[in-house]
Amino acid sequence: MSQEWTAAVQWDGHGLAPAIVQDAASGKVLMFAWMNAEALRRTAASGEAVFWSRSRQRYWHKGEESGHVQRVVEIRLDCDADAILLRVEQVGGIACHTGRERCFFRRLQDDCWVETDAVLKDPSEIYGRRS
Amino acid sequence: MSQEWTAAVQWDGHGLAPAIVQDAASGKVLMFAWMNAEALRRTAASGEAVFWSRSRQRYWHKGEESGHVQRVVEIRLDCDADAILLRVEQVGGIACHTGRERCFFRRLQDDCWVETDAVLKDPSEIYGRRS
Repeated sequence: MSQEWTAAVQWDGHGLAPAIVQDAASGKVLMFAWMNAEALRRTAASGEAVFWSRSRQRYWHKGEESGHVQRVVEIRLDCDADAILLRVEQVGGIACHTGRERCFFRRLQDDCWVETDAVLKDPSEIYGRRS
Repeated sequence: MSQEWTAAVQWDGHGLAPAIVQDAASGKVLMFAWMNAEALRRTAASGEAVFWSRSRQRYWHKGEESGHVQRVVEIRLDCDADAILLRVEQVGGIACHTGRERCFFRRLQDDCWVETDAVLKDPSEIYGRRS
């Protein structure tokens, strides 16, 4: 498989590009993460979202612990070729590690960030008790 | 007006946070840009999207040249408080400087980035001839 298509992306000084994840069915923006070229290749090859975790400095197959993988419907690139959009099917209906549908669960209202979205499943149930 | 709410955002080492812009009506992700605290304050205060242009190192009131301003419907923040989502009404129906509805006009198909969206208006008409 040609890997030239990843070279079209304008990776930043750290070899990364921002990745926006959108639910293909509802249109909701679920989360924001980062990819490097290999993460993008793995995402395209496997059909499931793989990111580069900056905090853990490793590949992050979304859902690897929770089971809430993201099945890729479409991969898009922007005009400057420096931002990636994934449209996905969110398995389990939960994208956020807090147990919510999406990470963008706070809305600005009258100079306050208000939580608008309920927790659908307790994170301890999703991830289990860690010893 | 209290400005404490911008302090809740985890700005990066450059004082910036990624901002995703979504069309509130269609749900399409229109573009990706960056904000600093002042850009976010200006966005909230004016009701129109204001970004920080990293390439030009100045505030960028989206639509200032084209007239294609983005009227803010909603401002959201993610779980880590380091990514911003704007849901907007896109005036003129064109977000991209190429004259397309959205910046994400390329889709990955068979290892190629394919342009899927038509140019709605020639950029020279949008921005005029520059001498």
